[in-house]
Amino acid sequence: MPSILILGAGRSSSALISYLLKFGEASSIEVTVGDVSLQAARERIAGAAWGKAIEFDINKVEEGRKAIVGASVVVSLIPAHLHPSVAKICLETGSHLLTASYVSDEMKSLDNASKSKSLLFLNECGLDPGIDHMSAMQVMDRIRSEGGKITSFESFTGGLIAPETDPSNPWRYKFTWNARNVVMAGQSTAKFLRNGEYKYIPYQQLFTRITPVTVPGYGEYEGYANRDSLKYLETYGLHNVNTMLRGTLRNKGFCSAWNVLVQLGCCDDTYEMEGVNTMSHGDFLRSFVEGEISIGVEERKRLEWSGLFSNEKIGLAKGTPAQILEHILNKKWKLQPDDKDLVVMWHRFGFEQNGKKKTIEASLTGTGTDSVNTAMAKTVGLPLAIAARLLIQGKIGQRGVAIPVSREIYEPVLAELKSLGIELQETSY
Amino acid sequence: MPSILILGAGRSSSALISYLLKFGEASSIEVTVGDVSLQAARERIAGAAWGKAIEFDINKVEEGRKAIVGASVVVSLIPAHLHPSVAKICLETGSHLLTASYVSDEMKSLDNASKSKSLLFLNECGLDPGIDHMSAMQVMDRIRSEGGKITSFESFTGGLIAPETDPSNPWRYKFTWNARNVVMAGQSTAKFLRNGEYKYIPYQQLFTRITPVTVPGYGEYEGYANRDSLKYLETYGLHNVNTMLRGTLRNKGFCSAWNVLVQLGCCDDTYEMEGVNTMSHGDFLRSFVEGEISIGVEERKRLEWSGLFSNEKIGLAKGTPAQILEHILNKKWKLQPDDKDLVVMWHRFGFEQNGKKKTIEASLTGTGTDSVNTAMAKTVGLPLAIAARLLIQGKIGQRGVAIPVSREIYEPVLAELKSLGIELQETSY
Repeated sequence: MPSILILGAGRSSSALISYLLKFGEASSIEVTVGDVSLQAARERIAGAAWGKAIEFDINKVEEGRKAIVGASVVVSLIPAHLHPSVAKICLETGSHLLTASYVSDEMKSLDNASKSKSLLFLNECGLDPGIDHMSAMQVMDRIRSEGGKITSFESFTGGLIAPETDPSNPWRYKFTWNARNVVMAGQSTAKFLRNGEYKYIPYQQLFTRITPVTVPGYGEYEGYANRDSLKYLETYGLHNVNTMLRGTLRNKGFCSAWNVLVQLGCCDDTYEMEGVNTMSHGDFLRSFVEGEISIGVEERKRLEWSGLFSNEKIGLAKGTPAQILEHILNKKWKLQPDDKDLVVMWHRFGFEQNGKKKTIEASLTGTGTDSVNTAMAKTVGLPLAIAARLLIQGKIGQRGVAIPVSREIYEPVLAELKSLGIELQETSY
Repeated sequence: MPSILILGAGRSSSALISYLLKFGEASSIEVTVGDVSLQAARERIAGAAWGKAIEFDINKVEEGRKAIVGASVVVSLIPAHLHPSVAKICLETGSHLLTASYVSDEMKSLDNASKSKSLLFLNECGLDPGIDHMSAMQVMDRIRSEGGKITSFESFTGGLIAPETDPSNPWRYKFTWNARNVVMAGQSTAKFLRNGEYKYIPYQQLFTRITPVTVPGYGEYEGYANRDSLKYLETYGLHNVNTMLRGTLRNKGFCSAWNVLVQLGCCDDTYEMEGVNTMSHGDFLRSFVEGEISIGVEERKRLEWSGLFSNEKIGLAKGTPAQILEHILNKKWKLQPDDKDLVVMWHRFGFEQNGKKKTIEASLTGTGTDSVNTAMAKTVGLPLAIAARLLIQGKIGQRGVAIPVSREIYEPVLAELKSLGIELQETSY
């Protein structure tokens, strides 16, 4: 009998688990949620008829294997670096694996093994990466089928907060996703193609090299380049484009203020600082400068709002700069129960058709209900949930290590997302 | 019969090997030089009576073991990351080991094992680290023995070029040491203590946070902080100082020009660039900017002199930014046969004695003879050579993983260096 195992009952699991519990009940399929906290897993199940909660800790390999044995599909929301460990167990137990994480080299190396066991290890199937891949491929396949030749592709996504949430917060940002990943964002060089030239942006330049993005009805944002855009040239079948750029969206003013923290070295995770237990927020910041800290009015406003100049004690016994910064920011950036988050995705496709240059812009926005039922949890979790259902129903034939760029995956997933109110709006000119 | 094995016959080995061949001949001790190039090893031996050349490749473990068996003392000049492999063989063969490299965590972990075999694994015994430790400890031990209380210590060393060498070179710099290490310098956060506060400088700030240094008779230099100064507080016995800073010296104008390359991301070694085989120097630089590159006159002068804006082809098939930059810089920064290098070391000790604040400055300068007999090769190699001799002669009792901060090592090494013309000059006020 088919069954689904979801690993991780944290921040982003609510919509995913609800969807699959409903599907499980309708189709008599057992849905198990495993988390290091059995309590957290139980809360997500909330007594659902076909639901089951278990304790799951990937570090206990033998118990992990026992939990996975018998699962037809494993959906893993645990930290990305642990996915290869889960994948290796899935090879033994004959389970498909779905994640919302980037394909690591270690995951990629399991391609042959997963194919030979007729398993799908589908990654990058959340929001970004995830819906961005699927929605972009849908538009690009349509352009190509209509004889268009794609010349450029740009795509930006951001997890922000709704305009009505926390109006005094000048960053217009809170942690709606893994806080540590936000603090560490951008530390590997960004690579992309613009106007026919390969471009590379190191961390120290990233937040100063902004692409302005206007989303109809939502206003103006700033986008910074995200990781390696070049590797998707092949995946997307974009062999002759001049521009290929994926990035992250923030509200205006965020990047120059964040850049102050980057330049000071506050996001460094490579060493532990001295004397953290007695340090104030202000002491932390002063560790990175000698003399007065010289920054602009707008940057100072944001850092001050976050309490970075204050005499408040940090409240940690020890930590790296990145850990301490995350802890300080979290004091103001933690979602409050009634906060609503806002997800914004924006694509721009340049193409030539019948000798004419054309552009399509497509955007998706979604607002959360509260701090549990966030737009982020919906948009990350539902693509995974839908893909899990399709797999169980035998509707996906692809095998091996993959990302959702094939039509057999993106068409039904996007159709179902549309029925759930998640859909991109297009304009063309 | 005691014997000495020197691993590596490269750039920095000339003075070391000459010294030990002379000692070997005087004391009937065999001196073997091993290098991946047997030819290079033979050239260093140059037919000396007690000299022997062998091929040595640490990657061939079994042959490496055979080469090391029977050596009383191994002096390793091979790349630092390979020293733990050499050290593990030395544990088996019962050989002492000397290096000029920083003590890695892996090397440190061999402390108990080397002690239990009554072996000395002496590291950081070159110039910087090396002579800096020894000369600083000698001054500090003297201050303390005279009742002084040390309040601050700053130390900077640089491998530069003599004023008469390459007068049109605006950097006043060439590669006189491992070129790759120069390109990669500073990528780990610098940590130090100044005026009672712990300070941290990330890579992106390092070359903008300059300490001016004046060396009597040689002029004004700029110093940037070097790695983790804090770890020497314990080693030097400096428990109540307000300032502890070790750094690297460059000529004026170097740091702000080098900072341009750092900010652009040219020193990044984490990824391979696209299309290197057809790329010019100018293409390389333009990969890191969009639009005009905006830099000052002085910085532009140095980058232009290095040909970084030129249409000359790079001449590499592939490479990381750091590898490509090293290759381009080497076209102008490679020492020419008659070039003379210049080594500059400078310490400043603050202390209180009889209720008075006092300062001692001490500096060492040395000029090379030509591109083979460099000041760098002398000042890095001779401390190792002298320590090897002392060990063979049974004059060093210390065992375990160590650096040369104990009197039994620094006194005889510094005395011998003085007799060879290498000596610090002191001023006090």
